[in-house]
Amino acid sequence: MAKTIAILGSTGSVGQNTLRVISENPEKFRVTALAAGTNADLMIEQWHEFRPSHISMATKEAADRVTSALPDTVNVVWGKEGLEEIARDPESEMVVSAVVGSLGLRATLAAIDAGKTIALANKETLVAGGELVMQRARERQVAILPVDSEHSAIFQCLNGEDRSSVSRIVLTASGGAFRHYNRQQLKDVTPEQALKHPNWAMGKKVTVDSATLMNKGLEVIEAHWLFDIDYRQIDVVIHYESIVHSMVEFKDKAVMAQLGTPDMRVPIQYALSYPDRLPLASEVLDLTKVGTLHFIEPDLERFPCLAMAYEAGKTGGTMPTVLNAANEVGVERFLNGSIPFLGIEQVIERVMDAHNPVPVRDLETVEEAEQWARKLAREMPVK
Amino acid sequence: MAKTIAILGSTGSVGQNTLRVISENPEKFRVTALAAGTNADLMIEQWHEFRPSHISMATKEAADRVTSALPDTVNVVWGKEGLEEIARDPESEMVVSAVVGSLGLRATLAAIDAGKTIALANKETLVAGGELVMQRARERQVAILPVDSEHSAIFQCLNGEDRSSVSRIVLTASGGAFRHYNRQQLKDVTPEQALKHPNWAMGKKVTVDSATLMNKGLEVIEAHWLFDIDYRQIDVVIHYESIVHSMVEFKDKAVMAQLGTPDMRVPIQYALSYPDRLPLASEVLDLTKVGTLHFIEPDLERFPCLAMAYEAGKTGGTMPTVLNAANEVGVERFLNGSIPFLGIEQVIERVMDAHNPVPVRDLETVEEAEQWARKLAREMPVK
Repeated sequence: MAKTIAILGSTGSVGQNTLRVISENPEKFRVTALAAGTNADLMIEQWHEFRPSHISMATKEAADRVTSALPDTVNVVWGKEGLEEIARDPESEMVVSAVVGSLGLRATLAAIDAGKTIALANKETLVAGGELVMQRARERQVAILPVDSEHSAIFQCLNGEDRSSVSRIVLTASGGAFRHYNRQQLKDVTPEQALKHPNWAMGKKVTVDSATLMNKGLEVIEAHWLFDIDYRQIDVVIHYESIVHSMVEFKDKAVMAQLGTPDMRVPIQYALSYPDRLPLASEVLDLTKVGTLHFIEPDLERFPCLAMAYEAGKTGGTMPTVLNAANEVGVERFLNGSIPFLGIEQVIERVMDAHNPVPVRDLETVEEAEQWARKLAREMPVK
Repeated sequence: MAKTIAILGSTGSVGQNTLRVISENPEKFRVTALAAGTNADLMIEQWHEFRPSHISMATKEAADRVTSALPDTVNVVWGKEGLEEIARDPESEMVVSAVVGSLGLRATLAAIDAGKTIALANKETLVAGGELVMQRARERQVAILPVDSEHSAIFQCLNGEDRSSVSRIVLTASGGAFRHYNRQQLKDVTPEQALKHPNWAMGKKVTVDSATLMNKGLEVIEAHWLFDIDYRQIDVVIHYESIVHSMVEFKDKAVMAQLGTPDMRVPIQYALSYPDRLPLASEVLDLTKVGTLHFIEPDLERFPCLAMAYEAGKTGGTMPTVLNAANEVGVERFLNGSIPFLGIEQVIERVMDAHNPVPVRDLETVEEAEQWARKLAREMPVK
């Protein structure tokens, strides 16, 4: 029987790649529900190929456009409530959580409460609400399978291993668009330059996060929650080629690594097919063609966002939530031209400085901290 | 309860490292029996540290020296029969098969017949008698755990994976002492030069085999038997740094690799402790210190031994046995100065050319082919 799957964020890059994986394995997977933002045209296309019975769009306007283009039998909803309805869709066994931003947290919690297996691509879910999410997942005995390449790599390295044997996790980072820039050069970089990622084609927010190394910082916090490991046991290594997707060191000093050509479909399919592996027509990794793999220490003075993420993680409570929200706003302000690239880190630092973290007891605590941080980040002056 | 262990070849480099691992984990492992060649002094030392109740030496002379130095309660035997007695030692659960050369095959078969778990370091066991050994191990439901770093790496990469998902095995090779030499330069190299391995401190035979790449060829044949995989699915990549110990590619194009600093104790301990990992005070791998990892295609024209090993493996029957025996003699003749370095490959090629392979039905077939190949290899003229 095919595994039934709902996708939150089906028109984004992870969503589209998930659908490619599903379309290659029609006997293994079936799409039951899709949620997206405002790209009604693409959603209509996706419906024609996958025939989900349940669709949600971010706005009423987008939902109306989808409704008018599809048969009456399709249930089209919208807004945050619509997204959560898709997350709880009774037809689906697995929910791929791939919306961008903090929207993902509430929807992922709804899916966990409904007992779905979670394929998690939304970074903010664990960064902003890691404690809540993991506790809820344990209570409901729901598996959270990582979808992004780094955490999937770690997850694959842990296959068949005793978790208590892990001594260290090493996340690799491409170093982003500005890996060879000094601080002086970073002052004048434009959004256009920041959006040129050396190895991966991803969404705008993630690509800017790669350029500041905040992306890796968020992944450090995610790894902490996903793999229940202390921050002192999580290292980041700059690896230009993005071939080694991440590594795990064990107590006997053996290191397991997962490698491959950059292709999102590999970790996506692994989350969908786990514990099995299915054939995938991805490019074979030929290391003799790559020739050389480089590994260098991350420069925290050039890229302080990574250090701020460690600090927020170690502080705990609402601090990672605030880091994440301030970063979202900082990136928005950079992309719309209102602050320079180095303004992003200033916004985050100042909002974190102003924050008195409290323990995360419930979703409301997270949402309050987020709203507070967003408001402050929007108004925060930058030099 | 401590796992009881017999070591065949306790005074060699694998044997000594095995004892180091055991001495660090006295509550986990206990030495019950040791077999060695002629190094009576070292065996006497080892007895004083580990107190095995059963010892075998290669010659009566060495056995007599050991007997006279130890209490009467120690049972000291000698010769091939002595070695097999140690292999069958009723006190031991596991046998570490680490004698050098084709002696290992008969002793390993004896250990399998006695139902011991095998930690296999002796290359010749699988190269010369792979079919026999694996069939016997299946019949007796005995596990064969690899001890050398490459096969251990593959074994670790297969942890928790479905064997049917494997698409390719990639063995890494340092390239040996002459990796930067051209054919002209290879003509005049001395045994002294051949014995300088760039990364690993190993025995003489293995070190010369690394210089000809025959070592990797033998490992290809071993991998074929150990992991039941077609020769077309086994690749060799030259990797100067010996940090990536080997890799497995799966059907979804994900590649798992095992990495580490060169330390034989890691794979040895893994075989002893499998499926657990025990802490080991080995050097932590810091890839930022290594900085760069290189991967290049092996040059089969400069190093034809690797191609000959593939050919012998694909031909099957007694051909790998003959390849291995001819190589043993070729290396001996090179080390004692009677043929040049490039004479080794000539000896092997000519003996293989003269051989009509037959299926391996029993140990006698293997031993006959070996004797025939050795005799021919000893007499084979070299230009």
